Amino acid sequence: MKFFASDNNSGVHPLVLEAIQAANTGNVASYGDDPFTRELEGRFKEVFGEGTRAFPVSNGTAANVVPMRAALRPWEGVICDFAGHINTDECGALEAAGRKIYPVAGVNGKITPELCAPLLRLRNGCHHVHPRMVYVTQSTEFGTAYSVEELKALSEFCRQNDLLLHMDGSRLGNAAAHLNTSLRAISRDVGVDVLALGGTKNGLMGAEAVLFFNPDLAPDFELHRKQCLQLMSKMRFVSAQLLALMNNELWRQNASQANAATRLLADRIQGLPGLKFTRPVQVNAIFLRLPKAAAEKLLQEYAISTWTDLPDTDEPIVAGPEMRIMTCFNTTEQQVEELAKAIAAALE
Amino acid sequence: MKFFASDNNSGVHPLVLEAIQAANTGNVASYGDDPFTRELEGRFKEVFGEGTRAFPVSNGTAANVVPMRAALRPWEGVICDFAGHINTDECGALEAAGRKIYPVAGVNGKITPELCAPLLRLRNGCHHVHPRMVYVTQSTEFGTAYSVEELKALSEFCRQNDLLLHMDGSRLGNAAAHLNTSLRAISRDVGVDVLALGGTKNGLMGAEAVLFFNPDLAPDFELHRKQCLQLMSKMRFVSAQLLALMNNELWRQNASQANAATRLLADRIQGLPGLKFTRPVQVNAIFLRLPKAAAEKLLQEYAISTWTDLPDTDEPIVAGPEMRIMTCFNTTEQQVEELAKAIAAALE
Amino acid sequence: MKFFASDNNSGVHPLVLEAIQAANTGNVASYGDDPFTRELEGRFKEVFGEGTRAFPVSNGTAANVVPMRAALRPWEGVICDFAGHINTDECGALEAAGRKIYPVAGVNGKITPELCAPLLRLRNGCHHVHPRMVYVTQSTEFGTAYSVEELKALSEFCRQNDLLLHMDGSRLGNAAAHLNTSLRAISRDVGVDVLALGGTKNGLMGAEAVLFFNPDLAPDFELHRKQCLQLMSKMRFVSAQLLALMNNELWRQNASQANAATRLLADRIQGLPGLKFTRPVQVNAIFLRLPKAAAEKLLQEYAISTWTDLPDTDEPIVAGPEMRIMTCFNTTEQQVEELAKAIAAALE
Amino acid sequence: MKFFASDNNSGVHPLVLEAIQAANTGNVASYGDDPFTRELEGRFKEVFGEGTRAFPVSNGTAANVVPMRAALRPWEGVICDFAGHINTDECGALEAAGRKIYPVAGVNGKITPELCAPLLRLRNGCHHVHPRMVYVTQSTEFGTAYSVEELKALSEFCRQNDLLLHMDGSRLGNAAAHLNTSLRAISRDVGVDVLALGGTKNGLMGAEAVLFFNPDLAPDFELHRKQCLQLMSKMRFVSAQLLALMNNELWRQNASQANAATRLLADRIQGLPGLKFTRPVQVNAIFLRLPKAAAEKLLQEYAISTWTDLPDTDEPIVAGPEMRIMTCFNTTEQQVEELAKAIAAALE
Repeated sequence: MKFFASDNNSGVHPLVLEAIQAANTGNVASYGDDPFTRELEGRFKEVFGEGTRAFPVSNGTAANVVPMRAALRPWEGVICDFAGHINTDECGALEAAGRKIYPVAGVNGKITPELCAPLLRLRNGCHHVHPRMVYVTQSTEFGTAYSVEELKALSEFCRQNDLLLHMDGSRLGNAAAHLNTSLRAISRDVGVDVLALGGTKNGLMGAEAVLFFNPDLAPDFELHRKQCLQLMSKMRFVSAQLLALMNNELWRQNASQANAATRLLADRIQGLPGLKFTRPVQVNAIFLRLPKAAAEKLLQEYAISTWTDLPDTDEPIVAGPEMRIMTCFNTTEQQVEELAKAIAAALE
Repeated sequence: MKFFASDNNSGVHPLVLEAIQAANTGNVASYGDDPFTRELEGRFKEVFGEGTRAFPVSNGTAANVVPMRAALRPWEGVICDFAGHINTDECGALEAAGRKIYPVAGVNGKITPELCAPLLRLRNGCHHVHPRMVYVTQSTEFGTAYSVEELKALSEFCRQNDLLLHMDGSRLGNAAAHLNTSLRAISRDVGVDVLALGGTKNGLMGAEAVLFFNPDLAPDFELHRKQCLQLMSKMRFVSAQLLALMNNELWRQNASQANAATRLLADRIQGLPGLKFTRPVQVNAIFLRLPKAAAEKLLQEYAISTWTDLPDTDEPIVAGPEMRIMTCFNTTEQQVEELAKAIAAALE
Repeated sequence: MKFFASDNNSGVHPLVLEAIQAANTGNVASYGDDPFTRELEGRFKEVFGEGTRAFPVSNGTAANVVPMRAALRPWEGVICDFAGHINTDECGALEAAGRKIYPVAGVNGKITPELCAPLLRLRNGCHHVHPRMVYVTQSTEFGTAYSVEELKALSEFCRQNDLLLHMDGSRLGNAAAHLNTSLRAISRDVGVDVLALGGTKNGLMGAEAVLFFNPDLAPDFELHRKQCLQLMSKMRFVSAQLLALMNNELWRQNASQANAATRLLADRIQGLPGLKFTRPVQVNAIFLRLPKAAAEKLLQEYAISTWTDLPDTDEPIVAGPEMRIMTCFNTTEQQVEELAKAIAAALE
Repeated sequence: MKFFASDNNSGVHPLVLEAIQAANTGNVASYGDDPFTRELEGRFKEVFGEGTRAFPVSNGTAANVVPMRAALRPWEGVICDFAGHINTDECGALEAAGRKIYPVAGVNGKITPELCAPLLRLRNGCHHVHPRMVYVTQSTEFGTAYSVEELKALSEFCRQNDLLLHMDGSRLGNAAAHLNTSLRAISRDVGVDVLALGGTKNGLMGAEAVLFFNPDLAPDFELHRKQCLQLMSKMRFVSAQLLALMNNELWRQNASQANAATRLLADRIQGLPGLKFTRPVQVNAIFLRLPKAAAEKLLQEYAISTWTDLPDTDEPIVAGPEMRIMTCFNTTEQQVEELAKAIAAALE
């Protein structure tokens, strides 16, 4: 099988492996009191600005759920798109931590102040869960990216209404590469309070970081992290991965390659008879539909996600299911060309 | 102030107080191992059929949340209308118990198989919370009642898809009185698995019952109830209230009086210029809008809910907010006539 | 059967039933915004002093667990006697709320600063749950009462170590009656921060109150109470019970009668051959052992608890199990005399 | 500083890094559906016997807490030594998952059936948490190892009383090396139901495995693991580490070196005036006390744990605190000799 099901089908970038090896020197203090983790905290301050607090965790579920548990009191809830990762892809981990989600019906994974505003009526008394946070994914679960203006509008809405803005940046690099800007410009600078910065989907082995730009949120985070099963004893090897990702903007190089592979594929298959793109193609994913027979043929050779949890389309599913093709940091042009040919062949 | 804000503004029916006094004989075993609770279990078997298991609790939040905690595994979720009581009026108690809600946009508080079906795509793997239960409120949060046919359609859908059907019967009596049928006919007989049977809103002091028609769900319920802070030591006084409600169908007498008061009020105020009913008037609540000035005048003398958590109307809120007037088991015709006059006066 | 298993085998004091009936006037606001609940808050201020905040709940489990959930952060724990009610009699309700217990081995249900002090070494870093609260039961699960001096020593220890002092006063009246003092003298005045004041075991139908003497703890309590399934809609009937208990010190009259009945029983059976008191007899419970045959004979006619969760005795269980006989507010002298005779007969 | 504070101060064994690199081939399926994870499951079947089910997780807290959450119902509890890792070193992670711990006072980290038996009296009704599991650490938090006979006695006790036996094998390799036996001989073969097999403390980067020998416990584990934030997307790199540990019994080589280093150190410093071993020296830790001045001098150059959460010693702390020196898989003889000299010098 050839794997285009997700960007986490990929392995580890060689520079990241090198960094891990370089961190394998003698004994150091465990649980994060080591030189690598300290260097990482400094590096993140450079990248995202003074006052940034950074805490490595081992995966994206944790990078979202643990800071939400820390920031929200038990009766405070989070507003997100129905397809938001915390709503449909974390197996209820946020609810298992006792926090409520108010899903709204965004478009292509993006929400707006207008969608959030009606829920503010629930912010009173002791009968409702009070909306207290807005969650956005950048880039989104549908391969789209919020523009800076869209994020600023959400952030402004949050400021006016005493809401925290949490960004799931599991693929933040892909968004920044697409928008040709910095990580900071689309997170801290647009008013994000908490950033779950992804690494695993962009060339790391297994490392994400929780970044607090709002200093009120950080103090007890270490206790939440430990209690939520996310304190790694040999933290240096997690931190070393994240350092490698920041060094010389490796994140941008990786994300750009993934985005370019998707762009190339889109160019190659656009207009093929029977194929329909179902979402705008922006970062490193293409959502599309093929006739059922063609889809089945393609799936014999290619691992591709058949995307099912999407109630927000009004199109009759006359063809096969909506499918998601993802490219990653190490997808080659040749692999893309082969896939394009396979799609064309399946459609014949 | 005159209270029409909720049917729980009311006191206790005299026969219920009598029953409490009659239960105040000598010492008995505590925690439910008493003659009154045993009699109640038998009575519920008569009313709802053999195999029924009944567990008194102290309030409606508990009557919904505790059996859901017992029936759902941590990764199983419940589908309900956005305005379902567990979604917007229990302060996140279900999420605090670690269970997830999938809200859907019903009409006037009622949902359908069509609204639930798209969520079934989430029933696989370990990334999603698996929908496993459908929650309906009978009568609904908007004063409407599901018909037997509507309930059967939902129940059939549940059976076909291995979903449990939970009925929030906080006002089941009002629905049964409106539909002129029995409690059983609109719960067990239409395929409900768990019924949270209300009493407090229909003349009791503070007593509800969790009824299991599905025998698989009952075995550990006593442990869940205790752990969820709902085991009353002097249970006999809770059970005695529920017995009084069942005796000679006191529930029907009470609910009918409440419904009739609402019907009378609707007749009196229908067509008043500037007043608009926003929901069908069926049981013991009227949802309406008045011009802002009229609403403010009325609220000086009358305690009425201004209903705010309703994103499911497409009507511009040009008048005042949507308001809810509720009548209860002891609302008199005179009280209704006075209220009707006050509304007319406010509109002048 | 004749019930001496617990003081909650009893019914409701007639004055309490009268108060319930008197509260059954017309409609009032629900959820605690009613005249009875406001009057109660004022009454508790009179009894316990200015600044007291009071919140009725429906049972003792809730009166302990909900304020602990509110006062303790997820990584803060509570120290208590092994036999403390929250440790062995609430079915893990505190752990279900995510809070940890550090049990210590007290004597006859009473703990000391010396037993608590070693645990303070755990108050650092993110690996341990930090002890943050001490829980005492007054009177204790073994029928003993802390003296004012003992409580002051614990309170002083708590102050010096930034620990909160929580008192489970499920039977506070029995302790106050035994010590011939006021409720306030053995709670607020000795430095208690939170009091779970019992009513149900002292003549009420089902009503307890959470009292905060530490004003930092109260602000969010209403939200915790609702989320923990403990907000009663017709709160006035809970508040009216507690008012009746405070009126003319009905609590003292009831507790004194219960204590006197135990005293009388102890006098009658003390010294009977084969019978051994296993705990000091102080309030309304006698712990004792009888030879197995005598115990079995007695249990045919009398419901008495066989107390089992007691690892803190060094005495070989040569006789029957440790048993607990409890008297209550309405135990009569005649009932005691009959029981004394039955015990004597069983021992023959 | 020279680090002897814990065996997780160490880095990664070279063969493990090689295995990680070897796993970094092309794209594979994520979340564990990859060849490395499948090979690992097969390898564990070889090592521990047919029917073994294995699930990698990222750290030891998770390896203990997640299977307990899966195996215990909300009202079932676990018995463990007071110093058991889940009781005092996981920041309440088990209670955060809603499960209760009954700590008992073992000796040098080891418990016995006699210590557990009194708690079985709590296995009834709905008032107590029912003990349902016994937790042992092998080797223990105090550097001791249970003998096969001791484990068999506990396991026999568990079988007779319908208790599950959970082994925290964070340092199982050290115990097996000390006892000169296999991993299986001191886990599955003595009746363990669930094994949390450690790797990180024995030369891995960050990988542990949950092994079920009791097939009833495995079915839903994947959902628990995901909901508990422990599903790694690039699982192959976790699995590859564990494979390397099993290959050619690398675990034994590593553990033997760590044990030997401790043995050498013990030999070198035993009998030094003013130094006292406080625990039997068996695996890779020495617990000792030095006079305060000597301890302070030593700590200037050496990172050593000052062990504080130990209420189970009757010895007056006249000297400095109890300290723990740990050696690890890569501790050299030269490092040990230097440390021995430093201790001797500090004592002069």
